[in-house]
Amino acid sequence: MERLPGFRDFYPEPLPQPDLWSADARQYIFDKWRSMARRYGFREYDGPPLEPLELFTTKSGEEIVGQLYNFIDKGERAISLRPEMTPTLARMIAAYERGYKKPFKWFALPQLFRYERQQKGRLREHFQFNADIIGERDPAADAELIALVIDTLRSFGLTEQDFVIRLSSRNAWQEFFQQRQGDPAQEYAFYQIIDKLERETPEASEQKLKLAGLSLAEVSAFIEQGKATAELQTILDNLAARGLSEYVKIDYHVIRGLAYYTGVVFEAFDRKGEFRAIAGGGRYDNLVKLISGGKVDLPALGFGMGDVVLLELLKARALLPRFDAALDGYCLIEDETLRAASLKLIQDLRAAGFVVDYSLTPTKSDKQFKRAQELKAANTLKVERNLAGELMAKVKNLKTRQETVVPVSEAATRLGETKG
Amino acid sequence: MERLPGFRDFYPEPLPQPDLWSADARQYIFDKWRSMARRYGFREYDGPPLEPLELFTTKSGEEIVGQLYNFIDKGERAISLRPEMTPTLARMIAAYERGYKKPFKWFALPQLFRYERQQKGRLREHFQFNADIIGERDPAADAELIALVIDTLRSFGLTEQDFVIRLSSRNAWQEFFQQRQGDPAQEYAFYQIIDKLERETPEASEQKLKLAGLSLAEVSAFIEQGKATAELQTILDNLAARGLSEYVKIDYHVIRGLAYYTGVVFEAFDRKGEFRAIAGGGRYDNLVKLISGGKVDLPALGFGMGDVVLLELLKARALLPRFDAALDGYCLIEDETLRAASLKLIQDLRAAGFVVDYSLTPTKSDKQFKRAQELKAANTLKVERNLAGELMAKVKNLKTRQETVVPVSEAATRLGETKG
Repeated sequence: MERLPGFRDFYPEPLPQPDLWSADARQYIFDKWRSMARRYGFREYDGPPLEPLELFTTKSGEEIVGQLYNFIDKGERAISLRPEMTPTLARMIAAYERGYKKPFKWFALPQLFRYERQQKGRLREHFQFNADIIGERDPAADAELIALVIDTLRSFGLTEQDFVIRLSSRNAWQEFFQQRQGDPAQEYAFYQIIDKLERETPEASEQKLKLAGLSLAEVSAFIEQGKATAELQTILDNLAARGLSEYVKIDYHVIRGLAYYTGVVFEAFDRKGEFRAIAGGGRYDNLVKLISGGKVDLPALGFGMGDVVLLELLKARALLPRFDAALDGYCLIEDETLRAASLKLIQDLRAAGFVVDYSLTPTKSDKQFKRAQELKAANTLKVERNLAGELMAKVKNLKTRQETVVPVSEAATRLGETKG
Repeated sequence: MERLPGFRDFYPEPLPQPDLWSADARQYIFDKWRSMARRYGFREYDGPPLEPLELFTTKSGEEIVGQLYNFIDKGERAISLRPEMTPTLARMIAAYERGYKKPFKWFALPQLFRYERQQKGRLREHFQFNADIIGERDPAADAELIALVIDTLRSFGLTEQDFVIRLSSRNAWQEFFQQRQGDPAQEYAFYQIIDKLERETPEASEQKLKLAGLSLAEVSAFIEQGKATAELQTILDNLAARGLSEYVKIDYHVIRGLAYYTGVVFEAFDRKGEFRAIAGGGRYDNLVKLISGGKVDLPALGFGMGDVVLLELLKARALLPRFDAALDGYCLIEDETLRAASLKLIQDLRAAGFVVDYSLTPTKSDKQFKRAQELKAANTLKVERNLAGELMAKVKNLKTRQETVVPVSEAATRLGETKG
């Protein structure tokens, strides 16, 4: 029986085939995401992976609606697996915004879903690190959020040689559009053209822009000039104060596809341009109001960072560590009359917080030792009786080959020393 | 806009309403689950939350089929959200069993789904700690798994006063059934009667048993006697060697509803009998073969522990810690000319691994201090200039009220000391 197309199984390392997805790498990424979000004072939240379809159809713009993984449930409800987290966040905030001090900084690590009929082989789910700041209009919030993106990527070992944040602004593009007397009804369509500029031929873009009464030349000149607005300059200064200037540049190519963005937008890219965006985000000051039906009006901004592109990048830059069971000890049981005493030792070591494994059934001594090595155990442990008949533990450090014999009651202390 | 019935939002603590679900409590539970599984040498895996419907319908027995959250997708496929993890695990193992040394010990923390039409207000999803041992027929594996259940519950502060593992065996019931010349075709139906014994009236059970040619009296006598089979005795002895006897008892009431169980089965219950089962599991030696269409034949056993009952129990026993942002420092910015220097300090502290927050925008000094207290920050930090014009950091421990002034470059070290 096969799994569904576009979905992933995650296997423990070492992987029997290199093209399998690693559960350890996934957890490594989750841990880094969670840890950096917390360091920045962000607090975790989550919502259901399923939502009423209308939560997504009315707010996110055409870009996302055609890709929804939606269906009708047994209760005849129109449902969608969540394609993004922001509408759920807006819904949750609208319900309890008075219960939290503003501005609040929240994060989540949701699995997101999409269903595209045409593109075979493409994934239909991924995990995404989402962080948002709610209730703060000042660009200081944008800077804080961008700093989090930068520090998160740095925590994986990526440097300013590897990635850059392309900083842009819908406000700047709006001003550009209005100065040229663009038709307000065409504004979102114009953003879509800018969004696709780098992926389409100049001819195709030129033609589309002409329909909107604009020329590719003036659009290109505006991008080329790349002059920071006052708002963007404030953000650049803030990031400079943190020593993060090398990680950001103004780039008006970026405008973000989703309809709900309102101000500053940004994307993180690898410097070599080999991969799709590593992360992207921006302001969506009107979304909470929209989702709450006008009840709650709060400025907001956030970003999403997916696990798939990040993992590709980390692999390409050889930045993934080796994953194993991280065994502190493997208990060798060579004398079956000592199995009960060995189980007690294993129990005590685990109770002390150590990662310990052993052969569940009687096994040849050399096979047990080989297994300890395969599992990359830091130590082997063996229960023995000394001449006085007392139970002793022989602890052998597999790296230094150093061997110590201590009373079983002191084995945990001994293991702690070799660990330190 | 409302979320779907039966689904949960998870909010950060402190919760604005006590009936909300806590994202912090959920993560606390996940961390304990993951940590204990690793200590036992179990390795993490995961599969998709969606699977082809047939993965569940043909293998799990009627108990689960009626409750599936299933639907037809855009590609006309019959899909189900996973109601349990074991079929996915069996599918994954069947695909790559040769790539892993046997026996292997795997765990997952999946979100599981069900759809019951009638019972309103009941949850349609929960999270479950799943741990399985694959490729070992010896009862030593059953004991290892049960020890993991016990130690996991103990890691939350629960003791033998709070819970007990009720140990039972389908083999024992099978023998009982065969000795009384039960109709083999009625065997699974008989197990279902036993499974419901504690929830139905004696009259109803008596009647059903009569149809199967058995009497409630002989069934009750068998349960009452509670004599351990040789297999169960081996498990009890193994657990006794670990010092865990107080946590287990033979109880033949337990038989587990799912069709695929084959041997030893068990459930964890609170001693007072206030809650539903905290965890349950057992052997399913034939399932991998079934799922793989006969290709792979491996004995297996596992358990599931849900987050909902566990959380209820921990709340009832007052065993949940208080959750907060765990701030190491809150940076006070009272002089706006020092904001840039403060941002640099915050950046350096976060880079050193500390959890640090601050007011994004200019805020009255007393309000900033109040916020630091609300967030239960361990310290406040303030950048100042000394008489020589050098940037200093004033670090104040909010518990001891002790205040130190150090060069900004030494603030991280100082914070580390107050932490240790």
